[in-house]
Amino acid sequence: MAKPPTASAFLFVSLMILALAGVSRGGYIGYNTSGGTVVGKLNVHLVPHSHDDVGWLKTIDQYYVGSNNSIQGACVMNVLDSVVDALLKNPTRKFIFAEQAFFQRWWIEQNDRTQEVMRNLVDSGQLEFINGGWCMHDEATVHYIDMIDQTTLGHWMIKKQFNKVPRAGWQIDPFGHSAVQAYLLGAELGFDSMHFARIDYQDRQKRKLDKSLEVIWQGSRTFGPSLQIFANAFPVHYSPPTGFGFDITDQNTLPVQDDHLLYDYNVQERVNDFIDAAITQANLTRTNHIMWTMGDDFQYQYAESWFKQMDKLIHYVNKDGRVHALYSTPSIYTDAKNAENETWPLKTDDYFPYSDSENAYWTGYFTSRPTFKRYVRTLSGYYQVARQIEFLRGRTLSDSSTFSLGDALGIAQHHDAVSGTAKQHTTNDYAKRLAYGASEAEAVVNLALSCLTSSSKSCEPTATKFSQCNLLNISYCPATEEDISVGKSLVVVAYNPLGWHHDDFIRIPVNDDQLVVRDSAGKYIATQFVEVDNITSNLRKLYVEAYLGVSSNKTLNYWLVFQVSVPPMGWNSYFISKQSRKVTTPNAYTSTHAVLENETIEVGPGPFKIQFSSINGQMKRVINHRTGVDISIQQNYLWYGASSGDTDPQASGAYIFRPNGAPPVPSSRSVPLKIMRGPLVDEIYQQFNSWIYQVTRLYKDKEHAEIEYTIGPIPTDDGVGKEVITRLTTKMVTNRTFYTDSNGRDFLKRVRDYREDWNLQVTQPVAGNYYPLNLGIYMTDGKSELSVLVDRAVGGSSIQDGEIEIMLHRRLLFDDSRGVGEALDEQVCVSNACEGLTDEESWKSSHVAKSTSMDVGYNLPPNVAIITLQDLDDGTTLFRLAHLYEAAEDLQYSKMAVVELKKVFAGKMIKELRETNLSANQNRTNMKKMKWRTEGDVGTFSAPIRGSPVDNTTLVVELGPMEIRTFLIKF
Amino acid sequence: MAKPPTASAFLFVSLMILALAGVSRGGYIGYNTSGGTVVGKLNVHLVPHSHDDVGWLKTIDQYYVGSNNSIQGACVMNVLDSVVDALLKNPTRKFIFAEQAFFQRWWIEQNDRTQEVMRNLVDSGQLEFINGGWCMHDEATVHYIDMIDQTTLGHWMIKKQFNKVPRAGWQIDPFGHSAVQAYLLGAELGFDSMHFARIDYQDRQKRKLDKSLEVIWQGSRTFGPSLQIFANAFPVHYSPPTGFGFDITDQNTLPVQDDHLLYDYNVQERVNDFIDAAITQANLTRTNHIMWTMGDDFQYQYAESWFKQMDKLIHYVNKDGRVHALYSTPSIYTDAKNAENETWPLKTDDYFPYSDSENAYWTGYFTSRPTFKRYVRTLSGYYQVARQIEFLRGRTLSDSSTFSLGDALGIAQHHDAVSGTAKQHTTNDYAKRLAYGASEAEAVVNLALSCLTSSSKSCEPTATKFSQCNLLNISYCPATEEDISVGKSLVVVAYNPLGWHHDDFIRIPVNDDQLVVRDSAGKYIATQFVEVDNITSNLRKLYVEAYLGVSSNKTLNYWLVFQVSVPPMGWNSYFISKQSRKVTTPNAYTSTHAVLENETIEVGPGPFKIQFSSINGQMKRVINHRTGVDISIQQNYLWYGASSGDTDPQASGAYIFRPNGAPPVPSSRSVPLKIMRGPLVDEIYQQFNSWIYQVTRLYKDKEHAEIEYTIGPIPTDDGVGKEVITRLTTKMVTNRTFYTDSNGRDFLKRVRDYREDWNLQVTQPVAGNYYPLNLGIYMTDGKSELSVLVDRAVGGSSIQDGEIEIMLHRRLLFDDSRGVGEALDEQVCVSNACEGLTDEESWKSSHVAKSTSMDVGYNLPPNVAIITLQDLDDGTTLFRLAHLYEAAEDLQYSKMAVVELKKVFAGKMIKELRETNLSANQNRTNMKKMKWRTEGDVGTFSAPIRGSPVDNTTLVVELGPMEIRTFLIKF
Repeated sequence: MAKPPTASAFLFVSLMILALAGVSRGGYIGYNTSGGTVVGKLNVHLVPHSHDDVGWLKTIDQYYVGSNNSIQGACVMNVLDSVVDALLKNPTRKFIFAEQAFFQRWWIEQNDRTQEVMRNLVDSGQLEFINGGWCMHDEATVHYIDMIDQTTLGHWMIKKQFNKVPRAGWQIDPFGHSAVQAYLLGAELGFDSMHFARIDYQDRQKRKLDKSLEVIWQGSRTFGPSLQIFANAFPVHYSPPTGFGFDITDQNTLPVQDDHLLYDYNVQERVNDFIDAAITQANLTRTNHIMWTMGDDFQYQYAESWFKQMDKLIHYVNKDGRVHALYSTPSIYTDAKNAENETWPLKTDDYFPYSDSENAYWTGYFTSRPTFKRYVRTLSGYYQVARQIEFLRGRTLSDSSTFSLGDALGIAQHHDAVSGTAKQHTTNDYAKRLAYGASEAEAVVNLALSCLTSSSKSCEPTATKFSQCNLLNISYCPATEEDISVGKSLVVVAYNPLGWHHDDFIRIPVNDDQLVVRDSAGKYIATQFVEVDNITSNLRKLYVEAYLGVSSNKTLNYWLVFQVSVPPMGWNSYFISKQSRKVTTPNAYTSTHAVLENETIEVGPGPFKIQFSSINGQMKRVINHRTGVDISIQQNYLWYGASSGDTDPQASGAYIFRPNGAPPVPSSRSVPLKIMRGPLVDEIYQQFNSWIYQVTRLYKDKEHAEIEYTIGPIPTDDGVGKEVITRLTTKMVTNRTFYTDSNGRDFLKRVRDYREDWNLQVTQPVAGNYYPLNLGIYMTDGKSELSVLVDRAVGGSSIQDGEIEIMLHRRLLFDDSRGVGEALDEQVCVSNACEGLTDEESWKSSHVAKSTSMDVGYNLPPNVAIITLQDLDDGTTLFRLAHLYEAAEDLQYSKMAVVELKKVFAGKMIKELRETNLSANQNRTNMKKMKWRTEGDVGTFSAPIRGSPVDNTTLVVELGPMEIRTFLIKF
Repeated sequence: MAKPPTASAFLFVSLMILALAGVSRGGYIGYNTSGGTVVGKLNVHLVPHSHDDVGWLKTIDQYYVGSNNSIQGACVMNVLDSVVDALLKNPTRKFIFAEQAFFQRWWIEQNDRTQEVMRNLVDSGQLEFINGGWCMHDEATVHYIDMIDQTTLGHWMIKKQFNKVPRAGWQIDPFGHSAVQAYLLGAELGFDSMHFARIDYQDRQKRKLDKSLEVIWQGSRTFGPSLQIFANAFPVHYSPPTGFGFDITDQNTLPVQDDHLLYDYNVQERVNDFIDAAITQANLTRTNHIMWTMGDDFQYQYAESWFKQMDKLIHYVNKDGRVHALYSTPSIYTDAKNAENETWPLKTDDYFPYSDSENAYWTGYFTSRPTFKRYVRTLSGYYQVARQIEFLRGRTLSDSSTFSLGDALGIAQHHDAVSGTAKQHTTNDYAKRLAYGASEAEAVVNLALSCLTSSSKSCEPTATKFSQCNLLNISYCPATEEDISVGKSLVVVAYNPLGWHHDDFIRIPVNDDQLVVRDSAGKYIATQFVEVDNITSNLRKLYVEAYLGVSSNKTLNYWLVFQVSVPPMGWNSYFISKQSRKVTTPNAYTSTHAVLENETIEVGPGPFKIQFSSINGQMKRVINHRTGVDISIQQNYLWYGASSGDTDPQASGAYIFRPNGAPPVPSSRSVPLKIMRGPLVDEIYQQFNSWIYQVTRLYKDKEHAEIEYTIGPIPTDDGVGKEVITRLTTKMVTNRTFYTDSNGRDFLKRVRDYREDWNLQVTQPVAGNYYPLNLGIYMTDGKSELSVLVDRAVGGSSIQDGEIEIMLHRRLLFDDSRGVGEALDEQVCVSNACEGLTDEESWKSSHVAKSTSMDVGYNLPPNVAIITLQDLDDGTTLFRLAHLYEAAEDLQYSKMAVVELKKVFAGKMIKELRETNLSANQNRTNMKKMKWRTEGDVGTFSAPIRGSPVDNTTLVVELGPMEIRTFLIKF
């Protein structure tokens, strides 16, 4: 069939022509992004960064390789790959990177060429390592030794691979900031500045008004201005101003569109937005320099998407000329700030607690996941020991090393790890890494110990091997529970990593009450058998089945308690054997039931006593007959009902503690009480309710009580999440004042419902008064002190005068909307211990049963501790000593202390000794300190007492109060 | 207060050591990805690609720059940027790219160095352009001339910039595939292969079973095997097998994890997955080669994330050795297929309609957005004209060119543009681009016309300027509506782009019925004034207000109708002036009301008549007195209620036509009828219901009726979406058979409820029988034919014998879940027309009032059309001729035709003439054809008639039936 023509006739009539706007045509544009800072203009420092949590919603490895993206689209490998490409495209571009736990994964996978490229980028300053630790550690729930260790690990790698020393602290995400972070993990590292986003919303508001977001922070009472740091709290968060995020995943990105050939050309509009945002921030900031944090969580997966836009912004903003934009880093920014002749506000103490709105106090995470916190703390101590023993033995090229444990612990200090704010599966991954690391360290320790204790100097691989028993936390250790046949002994080697001779009690699970213990000299020592209670038995049965899949009907009968006595940095051996009928066994006791005949019963084998009521089972009084202290005291367990977020959207969760407003619910006022006594230890058993059980132990010669609680499973069948506390109530007059530690090092004064830096508006009278504890909490009435020391990080407070409360456990039913997306509703993990069997006589003849690596009889002064002793991979040894007392804390101990290294390292020759900064990446003498002027700075602070440089011949180390000295030693 | 030592004493007892699994340590791994294909193994061709719609959920520019990401995270600039980086990292990596509308945006923004790098990548074969058109055009709703134009535009750029000729068709996403695509936009382009994903689910199932997804497709009845192509329908979709997507945005990506240092090492698992997926596909595929399409919509924003994983897969899979993996492209794949001595299934006709499940026939988009489809078609014709006029004038370096319109039209052919399946805001953007492009083309045309019609050879910028009136579709043209003062004339210049002399009627809105029209010889010609009806007046008022913001109370009074007569590729001028009282005006008529006195009234000024019933206003009979055709016919409007997806989740939507199962609802059987008669045109006005109005026009000497309908706003206040059809009902015996065109070129036979290639299971008796119309539809009973030609793409069918129905408009309330995420619920757009005022006498004396660029009196043969005449930017002219008849279609016209170029280009000297392939990127003589063996291939097809090579002295072009010949000419 016929088809119509395609183009029909068109008609045209003359009259006028339509005007077309005469736009210039697109094409390649070279952007000018060079230029540094400019005097007399507002300088906007664009600091490109990617905030890469070493585990949170995903595990660290999932974040690295980019798997499990349905949870979160994040791949750090892509970040680093693409940043290299982007930096190469324009030599003025810069990028900062923090987390070495990620960087080192990436580095090891690169070929020589890429490593060379990266070295050049670092040398040219395009890529700057900031913070530089293994992770961006938490600041509330970490111990200062762990902070130092994880930072040293990262700094060591950076120094080795790039010969660089990070200059800036970059703690942008942790939920509040500690005094120790400022003076120790800041100034003592040689950092000039630290940068962070999270401070209390009321504090921030006030600081905006008086331009005091940026301060000079002096975190230590002892060191004052001698350890200060420029501290930059961001005005909003660590993301860029609204509308200036350019990540490939950013749904609201507003690219600078400068191609006339395309629609939506917006250069002037974007330049105006930029200038508006800059001026807004400049109005809150001293000097002509402001920082924009150009990045966010796991961004820069395709770095070019950011840099392309920043190139354009810098180009067009500088062309506009009203303000000046530049690629920058925290170091460049800090140098610019320092170059200005400005006076800065002074900040002391810390930034705890942190709240982001009136009902959102981030004080829940001080306690969240207490079992994980305990596991981290336990392995942290073990890591100390393992590195010492590795050093004493000397590093070998065997497969095992303490690196895996250091790696796992470094990751665990992350602000979403030990904080308890990661998802459950991620927390399981942290625990798995710790367990693997501990296994490997155990192998190192076992091998080293079998060598060290071998009396033949040659250490054969066939030598005696040691073992450890990792499930003592559930009272499970099959080997020690087995029968010891007559003529055989269970040999227990106790190692003491401390600088002092140390006596302590140990407890071993056994089934036989006919065992005796002899020391390395063959002398029988006092023992006490304690019957295992039902609660412990049942827990043991449940967890053995749950974790090992072993359905054990064997019950455990006794704890065997005896005292060990171990020289400093040395060991001692004890021999447990079956009592021969022929031998009389002196000093073998069994705990006996105390009869509750009087209204009050006093317990304690030594001068330290506690009185309990026989009627209601409650604690009544604590008495120290040696010091004369005698205070009336009650103890109970209570729980706060957790807010479900019903009234306003804020629920209590992994981060946030928000009680529902009802008074805390006490457990029963009448508590079943059982008391077992013996010459070594008295034990008080109290069942507070069906899921709270407590054992209090008072050992011979110890002037404190040890309280072991078993809490859980916390019932939630009433639909209420519970935050369980124990509360100690006295009549002490404490004036709203109590003291909590900073990362286990300094103690800071806390005043209820009060903040030093602003006029606090109290919105959460409980949650807003909680502080993190790593070491403990105390209060005083001027006559007596009541101190509670803790075995892991927890939250604590004093909500009424004379009271101390500690949050011990939390089980919650709602997410608190800070990203983790899970309710904190968890189950318990595993821990460590040790035992084994061998023939006593042959062991004794072939082994060094007792030894110290120090000069025999030498002890460190009681106010100095060895906090690191570690062989590094370049043949040097890292050694740290810490003075344990603050200035003016103690008449006797707050003084200069002296350590004789020749005696510490007896039998080794120190060839070279070099004192370094805290993380050992620069010589102490090379450290430069920036000078800053502070407001009201009158220079009256007396210089702290510090030790003199170490003489290379005498090798004597002096330490002033709170001083930590770090050395690299070659033997 | 005193602090407890940090590291407590630890205890160790000898016994056993924990074993650690001995894994090899991580580090840099070099992946071996070289290797090409391997004989004797299953070769898995990994074809990396990004499917980048030139507009869909976002506009093309938003997709390019990556704005509006809240709708869809997509940025093509990133794709191209990052692909360059990724290809440079490993020379065996490959990538294919299709859409030149994107590529050219990117190219122009690159600096010389990047352009050089890209040229090297293309030269080395790492980057291969496939398809290579401006967009990946739709195949159902586009006209073949538009397909050629947009493909030529892209191919031209690729040739110019890279001297490359794309070899493969890559129509992976269009919703069904046309015969014209296969033989014309495939074989005639010189493509060896085409590749696509979407074929009917029943068809696909059958093809999987008999391994016939890959076929040799002969799409033309006329050309048969001489224009065949290897056609590869994918077994699932254009994404990779499940689990092998590695995009940065992929939430379910499973990266190959081969670093022993990290957890979740999975190399063997991933290799096994790969091999399983490969074998599954091999079982559906002939030969040892299978293709994996490694990409998806807008992926490769960070290309390295894909390539890194593919490097690993190729490395480890080849190391495994069971199958062989390689980086590949469609060309490499096709070469490998061709090298095998395999026999392939033969495919004729097309792949329409497409359904992806039993209730999901993608036949709604044939009609979706009919106003936009009309706008595209109108401007497509205008683009033809504008390029001709630009050629006649010669290109200048002025700002304006036809490029913008070609660009906009190229984009508009996209399979989510003219298809009507883009979001509303994107559709608005398409329309805006077309309008801007049209404005610019208008400027070109106006300027060129003012030069061409200037009698002085020098063409000054001050010359008369032309204007066009763009709102005639709403009957609005202020200039022609104004009073023409006595002594002045409105000059109308009619241009005819056809190769033949052409007579046609034009209609101009005027307010004065005292106007007269003279031709360029000064002779008064016949005119007819037609009163404007109320419907048109109201529409005009509404839309003028809506679109122009002008609240006009001026009503329009008349249409002035007159016949123009224009030479081929030339123009003629007509003068409209106020009737002087002194002059008698012959041939000036006004339409008069016909009196409906008989039961039947016959209308039509010529031999072609239509009878209407005076009683119910309905059409009754069509009679052609010249040919003797006389058929009984009824016409009505009906609507299908659209499925809301209530019963199963499939709703009718932009893509999918799914009536709700109820019989279509007819408009009233009794229709108000008004008839206006005159010597030039009779018009029949019918109001079918409150929102359907129709004017039928029968012009003097024309043997067809022109039907203009006004539909809308379609009411949806009953909660039912409506799909409005018109249905012509006759008593013709048509045996389920009807004919629809393929892209406006061939006609294909359609049989209701039947498919040639498989045993159709009928699930949607209406939607499953709809086919796309670009030119028209017809049916025949052997004696008569009833044809309906259309002015835009629509869907049509014959649901009962003797019936034709055409879907004219759709308004829907639900999304059909194919991604667009919007209900198709739109409003109307704008179109074009023209007019102006000047002094008649001065115009005549200074202008060439009538002219042709051909030899005076020369016409092309009636079976040949000029389909392209365009000056290219390198000084050559692109010229295409098309024979309009299929072989054996017509006794007179299905013959060899002859065009004399010397007469076509009268007054110009052809210096050089080079015949090329269809897209003009290679010499015709250089085209290579692959040989393929087809099943049942008996070689009986007689060779098609084709013209001989053109002799450079005689310059006579012969064209066989359906032949299109493309030339590059230098004058």
